[in-house]
Amino acid sequence: MGQRLVVIGGDAAGMSAASQARRRYDDLEIVALEKGHWTSYSACGIPYLVGGEVDGPDRLIARTPQQFRDKHRIDVRLEHEVMAIDLDSRQVEVRDHGHDRTFNLGFDQLMIGTGGRPIRPPLPGIDLGFVHGVQTLGDGEQLLAAAESGQCNHVVVVGGGYIGLEMAEAFVRWGADVTIVEQAPHVMSTLDADMAELVEVAIHRYDIDLKTNTMVTGFEPGRVLLENGSLDADLVVLGIGVQPNSELAAAAGLTTGVRDAISVDRRQRASAEGVYAAGDCCESFHLVTGAPTYVALGTVANRQGRVAGINIGGGYATFPGVVGTAVTKLCATEVGRTGLSEREAAAAGFAFESTVIEGKTRAHYFPGTKPIVVKLVVETRTGRILGGQIVGEEGAAKRIDVLAAAVTARMTAEEFVNLDLSYAPPFSPVWDPVAIAARQAIR
Amino acid sequence: MGQRLVVIGGDAAGMSAASQARRRYDDLEIVALEKGHWTSYSACGIPYLVGGEVDGPDRLIARTPQQFRDKHRIDVRLEHEVMAIDLDSRQVEVRDHGHDRTFNLGFDQLMIGTGGRPIRPPLPGIDLGFVHGVQTLGDGEQLLAAAESGQCNHVVVVGGGYIGLEMAEAFVRWGADVTIVEQAPHVMSTLDADMAELVEVAIHRYDIDLKTNTMVTGFEPGRVLLENGSLDADLVVLGIGVQPNSELAAAAGLTTGVRDAISVDRRQRASAEGVYAAGDCCESFHLVTGAPTYVALGTVANRQGRVAGINIGGGYATFPGVVGTAVTKLCATEVGRTGLSEREAAAAGFAFESTVIEGKTRAHYFPGTKPIVVKLVVETRTGRILGGQIVGEEGAAKRIDVLAAAVTARMTAEEFVNLDLSYAPPFSPVWDPVAIAARQAIR
Repeated sequence: MGQRLVVIGGDAAGMSAASQARRRYDDLEIVALEKGHWTSYSACGIPYLVGGEVDGPDRLIARTPQQFRDKHRIDVRLEHEVMAIDLDSRQVEVRDHGHDRTFNLGFDQLMIGTGGRPIRPPLPGIDLGFVHGVQTLGDGEQLLAAAESGQCNHVVVVGGGYIGLEMAEAFVRWGADVTIVEQAPHVMSTLDADMAELVEVAIHRYDIDLKTNTMVTGFEPGRVLLENGSLDADLVVLGIGVQPNSELAAAAGLTTGVRDAISVDRRQRASAEGVYAAGDCCESFHLVTGAPTYVALGTVANRQGRVAGINIGGGYATFPGVVGTAVTKLCATEVGRTGLSEREAAAAGFAFESTVIEGKTRAHYFPGTKPIVVKLVVETRTGRILGGQIVGEEGAAKRIDVLAAAVTARMTAEEFVNLDLSYAPPFSPVWDPVAIAARQAIR
Repeated sequence: MGQRLVVIGGDAAGMSAASQARRRYDDLEIVALEKGHWTSYSACGIPYLVGGEVDGPDRLIARTPQQFRDKHRIDVRLEHEVMAIDLDSRQVEVRDHGHDRTFNLGFDQLMIGTGGRPIRPPLPGIDLGFVHGVQTLGDGEQLLAAAESGQCNHVVVVGGGYIGLEMAEAFVRWGADVTIVEQAPHVMSTLDADMAELVEVAIHRYDIDLKTNTMVTGFEPGRVLLENGSLDADLVVLGIGVQPNSELAAAAGLTTGVRDAISVDRRQRASAEGVYAAGDCCESFHLVTGAPTYVALGTVANRQGRVAGINIGGGYATFPGVVGTAVTKLCATEVGRTGLSEREAAAAGFAFESTVIEGKTRAHYFPGTKPIVVKLVVETRTGRILGGQIVGEEGAAKRIDVLAAAVTARMTAEEFVNLDLSYAPPFSPVWDPVAIAARQAIR
């Protein structure tokens, strides 16, 4: 009989780790404990479920517990919540909600993939039923039902980040009057103000009401209370960020760091022998700042989970870190970013210069060419590309990937200008907009 | 009075160089001699002009001679053909076709951007009027007129490379019966056979007739003669490659290399003092094989021209080389490639392994997700990505750019798997297909 791996959390990080461990360690017993009702679903797909672009929540499930059992011999148990981790006796205390019982389960190795949760500030009325977070498939089903009910004429989205914009789009598709309330001077805090303003122009173009510099002070039935005034609301969506579910790990004595996320080394090992963490519950390393950071993204959860699983299975892998790449869209407007914004570059101590260019996604004469604005943040003297931001229309945002590769490879703007990017009139101008930005940065 | 720069050829390479030189050297006298009727037009746009997607040839002109005069003080002379270069007396012999006169023009620095020309094999009947190359705007106008005449019911495209496929699409759009004749076993010789077969499936799907392993032996009015048999043809398009216009340079004693293209150093300097070359007339350096190569692409011409111009203007720039990136589409099918194919990797002496994966361009549940097949060629032992090939539909091909960056940065498949690529359901699956290919390559 091999060792037993216990996985806490049946989503991207946990199940990626479990699958990788199985692949390398045939004799490993794997038990995955998920407190919710689903495994491995696409939380990022929820806005599109709510917007009616995806046919039902089942489409968002990548793999069911049965598939994990059949294909990977992973014993997935739903509605099983881990209440405590005992690192001395190497067991977890498990609450089986379905059968209303509690039991202890020993482990040789432990994989913590407890994820994150939408931040719910302790405001008066925050627990009213019409105030929704966006996290589980259950949240998605509730929001979809609300949209379909025809009762959501006034929707208030609190927070103008990725989830906020995506949920705004979802309800615009249903014909609702949507207002985004953002505490900061601009939406999309991961962009610099000049690029965020382009997103704000789009927000207005799609007839979404936007209140920046505006603090929400509480909720009453049918109303969102602001510093000065209030808004009618049939439904409120919270999009003010995610915090790590790290309390269980912290209570067990594991070290936590940035934003209280679980600290891990390059092999995704937490601070106790045989204990791993990955995904939204743990820290990442930022390749440009060289400092720990916190990102709650499915891609990172999958990659970290893979690395953890390889190591759990007896292999060797490291997760080098992130450069902060993200992409989203609001109706026809696409947004991408990678590396450091001006604010982040300044905070990390870099001297830098910024360049912004306006271009086209295809040859200027080709049908369907769309506007694209590219911003580069480039280190002074070295010319190293520290970060990039893109706002544009169809075909614009995915170009952030080549900038992410350039930032990762520590390319200079000069090297990037000479990068052998692809060109044909249906795909880009002869100088791709990202290369034009680099060329401009050199001048 | 400053020096005089003479530029031979008024297209991408020559005019990029001229513009850059002007920017840095205010006092430089710049004379650009173009034997044809246009400057700086998009030859890559000609298939779309012929296909009716672009409104007239003027749309393909990026900048007119008057614009170069007004904005950059470059004395552009059309219908001026350089007949000889005398490196000893440092002058060129110029034939002014418009005024039917010949004169000599001295230079301090010389920029050779004579471009390339479609290969016309010496077959019987090759000079018949219905056999067209695709190079100048004049070619494009003639082909468009032929298409519009309604007389092109049977079109034969000789050669199944990029231009061949694009011209086939153009005439398919006009409702012609199109046959592609390819001498090799497969179309798209820059792809490996397995990926080329996917393109061939698409060719058949678009009702284009394809004859591979078939040699054209000559042309007769209304017919293309094959090794065995013949094809009816109202119009023939040659798409069998480009050769450098390097005769002038060679006759002047400048060194030539691969495919008789003009040899240049990293600053785009030819083998004589003060003489530069860039674009389709000169060699490139291949960053993966480490050997000289020949590519005839607008992007490379622009980049090399820029580098030449910076150096001519007294600055310092080098062109590091190419990785062989290219992209095209045939109707809804997109094709991209970068780095080395299996054949190229073997020829360069690499031991390698290949991986092919089938994926989707967006999240599997997102509307409009399209198929994409990614192939990676990875060096054995080191895991270094030597090349990539993509065949798919909307959104597939431009992903080649991130592989081009990875090949340039000498990333391994393991590094690529952990690259912080962007993800949101409208843009990609949580593991982008290119990352899935890298993950598969590691196994």
